[in-house]
Amino acid sequence: MAPGAISLPPSANGTDGTNGTKEIINGTNLPTKTQNGLPIPAGLDASKLIITKSPSPRAVPDAASAFATEDTICTDHMITCAWDRTRGWSAPELKPFGPFSLMPTASVLHYATECFEGLKVYRGFDGRLRLFRPDCNTRRFLRSAARVSLPAFDPDELEKLLVALVAFDGPKWLPRDEPGAFLYLRPALIGTQSTLGVCTPTKALLFVTLSYMKKMDSPGGLKLCTSPEDTVRAWAGGFGHAKLGANYGPSLVAAQAARDKGYDQILWLYGPEGYCTEAGASNFMVVWTDKESGKTQIVTAPLDDSIILDGITRRSLLQLARDRLGDEVEVVEKKYTMNEVIEAQREGRLRETFAVGTAYFVTPVSVVHHRGIDIHIDIGDGYGGKYALLFTQWLKDIMYGGEDHPWGLVVPEEA
Amino acid sequence: MAPGAISLPPSANGTDGTNGTKEIINGTNLPTKTQNGLPIPAGLDASKLIITKSPSPRAVPDAASAFATEDTICTDHMITCAWDRTRGWSAPELKPFGPFSLMPTASVLHYATECFEGLKVYRGFDGRLRLFRPDCNTRRFLRSAARVSLPAFDPDELEKLLVALVAFDGPKWLPRDEPGAFLYLRPALIGTQSTLGVCTPTKALLFVTLSYMKKMDSPGGLKLCTSPEDTVRAWAGGFGHAKLGANYGPSLVAAQAARDKGYDQILWLYGPEGYCTEAGASNFMVVWTDKESGKTQIVTAPLDDSIILDGITRRSLLQLARDRLGDEVEVVEKKYTMNEVIEAQREGRLRETFAVGTAYFVTPVSVVHHRGIDIHIDIGDGYGGKYALLFTQWLKDIMYGGEDHPWGLVVPEEA
Repeated sequence: MAPGAISLPPSANGTDGTNGTKEIINGTNLPTKTQNGLPIPAGLDASKLIITKSPSPRAVPDAASAFATEDTICTDHMITCAWDRTRGWSAPELKPFGPFSLMPTASVLHYATECFEGLKVYRGFDGRLRLFRPDCNTRRFLRSAARVSLPAFDPDELEKLLVALVAFDGPKWLPRDEPGAFLYLRPALIGTQSTLGVCTPTKALLFVTLSYMKKMDSPGGLKLCTSPEDTVRAWAGGFGHAKLGANYGPSLVAAQAARDKGYDQILWLYGPEGYCTEAGASNFMVVWTDKESGKTQIVTAPLDDSIILDGITRRSLLQLARDRLGDEVEVVEKKYTMNEVIEAQREGRLRETFAVGTAYFVTPVSVVHHRGIDIHIDIGDGYGGKYALLFTQWLKDIMYGGEDHPWGLVVPEEA
Repeated sequence: MAPGAISLPPSANGTDGTNGTKEIINGTNLPTKTQNGLPIPAGLDASKLIITKSPSPRAVPDAASAFATEDTICTDHMITCAWDRTRGWSAPELKPFGPFSLMPTASVLHYATECFEGLKVYRGFDGRLRLFRPDCNTRRFLRSAARVSLPAFDPDELEKLLVALVAFDGPKWLPRDEPGAFLYLRPALIGTQSTLGVCTPTKALLFVTLSYMKKMDSPGGLKLCTSPEDTVRAWAGGFGHAKLGANYGPSLVAAQAARDKGYDQILWLYGPEGYCTEAGASNFMVVWTDKESGKTQIVTAPLDDSIILDGITRRSLLQLARDRLGDEVEVVEKKYTMNEVIEAQREGRLRETFAVGTAYFVTPVSVVHHRGIDIHIDIGDGYGGKYALLFTQWLKDIMYGGEDHPWGLVVPEEA
């Protein structure tokens, strides 16, 4: 299914303009509209949010203890919302962060009926909290859910829930006196139906956590190793474009093998031609002087064969390049091979390469190892070349309030 | 990684012949051997099984209520065993069936760090309980775990745990006076580490449930629909050969589309040539008269490109054909295309097609729909042609004690 080809099935989209009255009974919203005498499952509805404050809020860790153990530290609260095929979405809950109870037969534990999103919350230098283009995340999340047969939802309602959680826990966990800090929002959707048997889940759980995440765009540059010839991350007709759990677990063996050889991440190649696709779980870009035209080009893999993720940092960076760099740089989304990258480097035309994504932000790549050869790329003082630095600055300005921009969504906080 | 290329890392294989003394403290086994002063993680050890009998055993459902709801009914007990990278495998527990507690940040819920197995327990016509080649399942499970970066274990120890659960719950849930009945054993292994971040899990949980499963080898024959041209289940260099959750969730969209068109399952084709690979989540076989040699052949997809599952029913059926059918039938594991199947049918050379696997057993296929054409295949009285019936009978004899055979492992029960 093409990434854009999603329509909300009526059974999961009761929050359209025709929505009737709703009531909350025992924490669940029962469908109140009927169609041919049958109840219509309720849509996701942020206005029904039920808030339960944690009775035992935790201390905010200092920088040293935030990553002292391997367990991710989450804030005091999370959001959960259950779905079943008959009743639709229950009333969302904002409640104390804590474990789930899942039956051993739950769909997600056997059949990987799961997808997720990831975005950061930024404490701006102007003191305000911001999300970066959350509408892009919620819409991609909806496409991912459809690709793995999980229920649809109104992405605008999910965005309201993200904002609600950030507004609730943000002031304590991202204090105003620490501008430049960020936390990580993780919406996830899992199939919870307790049936052993390969079938579309009739029950699901949406949840959102807010947690610490290490800063990964550190100086020094990433060292990449191209994927082994016998290992393919994603393929045309598969699901590499969707943020499914199924894309990640099976990639760990190759990633570990790369780390064992001293590299940070895999540069995933595709097909006998060796097309460059993704760097680890991030998009990958090169800046080179085009052989034919002599123009400076920013080149990255295209979205049309659904192999790579439609990254929001990727999309934003390309948009900024088109809007702000004018004729200086040509933005090219096309298939390009590792051999073309090597040729550009040998001919002195390769100017920069970087990984872009929520985790790595814009991180320059200093080395790509391919079939026995190390290709070295200049990364200036460690933070990348001219364009990596430019994109980093432009994006940070939007994220941290240096520039007032529609991509930076301010989250209201109580005074 | 090739299916056979697994070696047990020392960190997860403490149950070799050199194993020293062990002790049980608070339900976990602490490593007692040291190497260079560091403890060696403990291996999976069935002899440490801790048994906790259910205080509230449930009634065995009758045939009508066993499948009255969509939730899978499990027996009174399950087996669980936790692993972490430092301590290795804890003492396995046989305990009341019930929900797990998992953190919202658990690896399995985000990154599909999960794999499973499935095998049946048969109540024989001689009154005895049997497993069918469980050593094949436990070894394949180990290969699947390695493919998704989950910990290794001694497969013989897992087999002992399967036998322990069946011996414990079998007498009540598969009563002696119901020969021919079966239950379904589901070992599963999930990554439980509570870290948001794509990394190899340092904690995992192995669990085994025993449950009801519908009889799926019903008369009438399966109707298959070939996979859409833009959807590929598994690919060379991927993980189609491993029993990972990641193979199943992403297949649900196409499977539902096939059902919406009136077919039971997808016949998954591969590549522009349209090679036949799997039927739903089962292996697929055709019996035809070879165009060149005029010989009767049983043809099925090969294992060497790791696209299809190394099915135990598949493997057993091919072995029986080789051992017992002699020159009558040639067993051929090779790539073959949908067009070759259509050609054989048009030329009157197509004799049988069937899906084989634990769920479908040996189920004849009556129709394959391909790009607008329905190909009809004779299935005799509904249970298949000569060979489907022969394999069914041979396998049933081994499973239900009609024939004393090394593939049928008798589970001891208290008198």
